[in-house]
Amino acid sequence: MELYLIRHGLAGERGQYTNDDERPLTDEGEKKTAAVARQLKDKGIRFDLVLTSGLMRAKQTAAILEKAKLTPRVEESAALRPGGEIEEWINWLGCWSDYNDRSRLALVGHEPDLSQWAELLVWGEIKEKLNLKKAGIIGLNLPSRENLIAQSELFLLISPKWFI
Amino acid sequence: MELYLIRHGLAGERGQYTNDDERPLTDEGEKKTAAVARQLKDKGIRFDLVLTSGLMRAKQTAAILEKAKLTPRVEESAALRPGGEIEEWINWLGCWSDYNDRSRLALVGHEPDLSQWAELLVWGEIKEKLNLKKAGIIGLNLPSRENLIAQSELFLLISPKWFI
Repeated sequence: MELYLIRHGLAGERGQYTNDDERPLTDEGEKKTAAVARQLKDKGIRFDLVLTSGLMRAKQTAAILEKAKLTPRVEESAALRPGGEIEEWINWLGCWSDYNDRSRLALVGHEPDLSQWAELLVWGEIKEKLNLKKAGIIGLNLPSRENLIAQSELFLLISPKWFI
Repeated sequence: MELYLIRHGLAGERGQYTNDDERPLTDEGEKKTAAVARQLKDKGIRFDLVLTSGLMRAKQTAAILEKAKLTPRVEESAALRPGGEIEEWINWLGCWSDYNDRSRLALVGHEPDLSQWAELLVWGEIKEKLNLKKAGIIGLNLPSRENLIAQSELFLLISPKWFI
């Protein structure tokens, strides 16, 4: 299956909101994320499901993907909150009823979690060597949904400037 | 500095040429590589130098980059031949007279060498977990030209379909 790790778009300044969970995308963040979504659609990408962190800036990013008709469904996942555990998501994947070998799943979340999850899935350890920009995307080929750690192949690491 | 590892474009079938070194790009390979070069130019990318393998398909790819005015110079490097040693290139880099902290260098070469070099520069070991397509690009940030192994950051891994 293909797994896409998508970082939320450009959001308001940290500290301007009493609850950081409510920090929204800026106008520029919305525009750039929508442009990324249009490009994904033009490239023929479709997801079976988008899982998103419950934080405002991630939910807004996921909503932009849904509005662009990249996915029929968006669901929130506590595993994708900042600092969430990859094991929690792996457990979820093991039970995902719509899973098949050709599934395309997108996760919308936060840094440094997403790039660290990618490193775990590809190399089995975190070295903090992947630079994932806001509204950037990591693409992984997962050979199955069992024994996920250190089994995946990296086929995409892209920031918005490269394709919008 | 920024290092771009660029795989040669689509070439003729292996076995149709008595000397594999002479295998040229196909018409489609030339067109797609030229489209990649145009996109790089539109994104503002410029290289200080393109080093290429001496094989026909790599030299043609480098010539397309030069024709698109992405670089003022193309030079051949024996280190970039199939199976070439990264240590040979590292020695060359240590003596590169035009090097500075903001240099942009492109290497045009072959698989699996280029993706293995990227793995060595980023993680310090080869795990064959990067999927670099023909005319695809890997982008690395190198903190210096000393102690290169396991010091770089990966900021780009892209195949032509994502940006042309």
